[in-house]
Amino acid sequence: MTDHAPSRRAGRSGGRAARLALRAAPMSDDMRPIRPGMTGGTYRPLSNADVQKIHNAALTALETIGLADAPPSGVEILTGAGAILGDDGRIRFPRALVEDMLAVACKDLTLCARDPRHDLDLSGQRVHYGTAGAAVNMVDVTGNAFRDSTLQDLHDAARIADTLDNVHFLQRPMVARDIADNLEMDLNTIYACCAGTTKHVGTSISDPSHAQPCLDLCYAIAGGEAEFRARPFVSMSNCFVVPPMKFATESCESMETCVRGGMPVLLLSAGMSGATAPSTIAGAITQAVAECLAGLVYVNAIAPGHPAIFGTWPFGLDLRTGAMTVGSGEQALLTAGCAQMHAFYGVPGGAAAGASDSKMPDMQAGWEQMCSNVMAGLAGCNMIYEAAGMHASLLGFCHESLILADDIIGQAQRCVRGIEVDDETLALDQMAEVCMGGPGHYLGTDRTLSHMERDCVYPALGNRMSPKEWAESDRPDLIEQTIKRKEAILATRAPARFDPALDADLRKRFPIHLPA
Amino acid sequence: MTDHAPSRRAGRSGGRAARLALRAAPMSDDMRPIRPGMTGGTYRPLSNADVQKIHNAALTALETIGLADAPPSGVEILTGAGAILGDDGRIRFPRALVEDMLAVACKDLTLCARDPRHDLDLSGQRVHYGTAGAAVNMVDVTGNAFRDSTLQDLHDAARIADTLDNVHFLQRPMVARDIADNLEMDLNTIYACCAGTTKHVGTSISDPSHAQPCLDLCYAIAGGEAEFRARPFVSMSNCFVVPPMKFATESCESMETCVRGGMPVLLLSAGMSGATAPSTIAGAITQAVAECLAGLVYVNAIAPGHPAIFGTWPFGLDLRTGAMTVGSGEQALLTAGCAQMHAFYGVPGGAAAGASDSKMPDMQAGWEQMCSNVMAGLAGCNMIYEAAGMHASLLGFCHESLILADDIIGQAQRCVRGIEVDDETLALDQMAEVCMGGPGHYLGTDRTLSHMERDCVYPALGNRMSPKEWAESDRPDLIEQTIKRKEAILATRAPARFDPALDADLRKRFPIHLPA
Repeated sequence: MTDHAPSRRAGRSGGRAARLALRAAPMSDDMRPIRPGMTGGTYRPLSNADVQKIHNAALTALETIGLADAPPSGVEILTGAGAILGDDGRIRFPRALVEDMLAVACKDLTLCARDPRHDLDLSGQRVHYGTAGAAVNMVDVTGNAFRDSTLQDLHDAARIADTLDNVHFLQRPMVARDIADNLEMDLNTIYACCAGTTKHVGTSISDPSHAQPCLDLCYAIAGGEAEFRARPFVSMSNCFVVPPMKFATESCESMETCVRGGMPVLLLSAGMSGATAPSTIAGAITQAVAECLAGLVYVNAIAPGHPAIFGTWPFGLDLRTGAMTVGSGEQALLTAGCAQMHAFYGVPGGAAAGASDSKMPDMQAGWEQMCSNVMAGLAGCNMIYEAAGMHASLLGFCHESLILADDIIGQAQRCVRGIEVDDETLALDQMAEVCMGGPGHYLGTDRTLSHMERDCVYPALGNRMSPKEWAESDRPDLIEQTIKRKEAILATRAPARFDPALDADLRKRFPIHLPA
Repeated sequence: MTDHAPSRRAGRSGGRAARLALRAAPMSDDMRPIRPGMTGGTYRPLSNADVQKIHNAALTALETIGLADAPPSGVEILTGAGAILGDDGRIRFPRALVEDMLAVACKDLTLCARDPRHDLDLSGQRVHYGTAGAAVNMVDVTGNAFRDSTLQDLHDAARIADTLDNVHFLQRPMVARDIADNLEMDLNTIYACCAGTTKHVGTSISDPSHAQPCLDLCYAIAGGEAEFRARPFVSMSNCFVVPPMKFATESCESMETCVRGGMPVLLLSAGMSGATAPSTIAGAITQAVAECLAGLVYVNAIAPGHPAIFGTWPFGLDLRTGAMTVGSGEQALLTAGCAQMHAFYGVPGGAAAGASDSKMPDMQAGWEQMCSNVMAGLAGCNMIYEAAGMHASLLGFCHESLILADDIIGQAQRCVRGIEVDDETLALDQMAEVCMGGPGHYLGTDRTLSHMERDCVYPALGNRMSPKEWAESDRPDLIEQTIKRKEAILATRAPARFDPALDADLRKRFPIHLPA
């Protein structure tokens, strides 16, 4: 739980006793100022006409350009559904096919978690934040350096995320580079994530032949295939395209197995604007939409209504150097524009936000992580991936930054919640009372006290002390405080979120690397 | 000028020569990816019905509660215009009076700068960012400490702001605490700001008796009263109310003098939500709107159409401690909601955003400064005050943070600019070329090259290196780089932005403290 307890004993005395009394009562869930799945959509970077233009351009692209490199199985599935294989090997999609598949596609998806308290309702423009990525480095904050990421790092990230109210799911953010065998890496990725958190887990599968073993591990964790199919708590993040407009042959094969095996898929199109996608924001969104529509046809041709997330993830490029960049205003617009397209189609959608180009959790990391996180939320993105802990243009993951993201996302969620306007919040009666014959201020009124808890998000690590208090408290450093919090989380929590008997069974059947 | 030159020589070679050739040509102003006065409004935290409710509640508050403590001159002005003085000493405003004054109020204000290149067009929802505040401390980044702010600090802030493309105006951000005499402080504040920058300057006047001397100094800088009245490059930031719903008697007297003297006024209502304003966001906005409408009636009753900025600046409060807080999501909503009300009235409006509660330019400062800055911009706020350099809940100003704000605001402005959707940006033709028989990527296409300059905002100090490049470059630290930039700015620029003859004249007529 985020620490909402008052950390500063100093301050005004007016109403303090009443405030502390109020604090003593635990807050019920529906009283919390923010929660997963609040509805966004107050920010609309695209006009309705713009949305239509992008939609039409994407349909034209699918009809006239199509996608190359489908696997033989995919060609059969797609042409069987009505797509057309050209002499050039590209599969083209008639408009009516796309429209028909949109009609049957899964809409009001609940993404399950091992603990149902953490289930995610992806209907409408409900907003959730979580990790994701394939970072190959850990950011070593103390040493001001980068090092290879390991399985233990991944497990620790899961354990930390499990404690953070505002990180709503855990998609694998980094690669366990200490596991040489790729199948073992895929299996251990699932184990390390699920052993660390009971929130929804997203994972990747590096080879089609790994898909069934990964499903088997998920079934085993669930207590059986039927149990997993009923509440699939692991989704597959699937880079089914190699932009521009080519299927990723092997990833498509993995996807087919996962769809048939009952695992939700994130249809992930990660073009880079200026390299593998058009350099314009509108063009990059259009191509990502076209590619994800192709994926959506593919999935629904296999299993109509199968849970799939429309994963338009266009990224930015620093056109001066050709290097990827994720912390720019252009990135925030790419993601927010995509969120609006998801809402237009009415399908659960996801995009990337909250990542930084900075190498360390410094001021740049703060402004970059907030910019796209808050805009994606305001735009009503269902699943905001890469929202926590991501540095160095996706190459590094940072545990301290993950912890601080709880504060960042908390404030972003407060913005998503927005402004309630009604007779009570307009407060005209209070204003009259306070001003005419009243105390001349609103401190200590009943309504002020009740709003203290229900409407305000307090930072866990963000510091609101006055300069005087701060100096008297030995000038606490944000990162040092965060390192302490990290150490406390990792020291005090149980190492695995599995029943011992289940854990022993998993270890018998799968090559688990983490020590028991 | 922001340094847009390529700082990284490494990278992909494709198209590099072409890019460098393009770079060699200076960019014309209309080609720049961002500029002052871009139009916001894609983010609308309030529905149309909400806006109407707030408007009606504000009119009811003015009609039934009114404002206390007007000076005798103000009572005469306001009752002369149709307001009603009650037996309780409060002045109440009939709806028709407010509506009539809104009709004559200044709408399409151009806020002048000494250099006309820096004039600010406040029509519509055009967005500008700048400094403001009354910090009493300088943040000493190197010493990790706070110290009293001085006149030289203020002058240096002006000199730095003068070099930053994305800081569009300089309102006095801190108090020159080394000047004991308040009149001398007011005069030297104007001198130190105008001597440092030719951008628009905002100032405060601490006593009604100082208003005329301050006007006289402005006239002298302008070369005469008529010259100043024709292009008033200094505005007065006037806290004309003590919320809730009381006029600030002396500030109103200062305001009267400035209005008559031809100086634009910022009608500043700075309530604290939960203390001097209702604790709800809607209530705090309503009260601020009511107060600013009263101010607008006041100004227009003196001089119809006089340039005035509708300064609803409600701030947040940490209700656990009663301390002011400015870095929260609630703050961003307060400001964005106000911006929408300004647009509803069609008057030039300003609000506060971009300040941090953090004591130092750390990750917290980054996320807090971005959150409200980008949301205020997206909401279309004409004048975003406190947008740069502000720390410790407005108690501290930081030169390094001011410099970094150029990057933060740059990215926020990119977001304000938004997504252009047309046949060229949809890029369908490019997509077809690239995918079918083309190179399979967009690198080096003509359109990618042209977008490099016109559509992308490159950070001046934000670092986009890969971990490898970063390690090879001795792991540059953001704050150390910024300190170097600050030293370079302060070392190389001329000390005063006045003609020597004018400067000598000013020094003869006014008690100028800065050394010549």
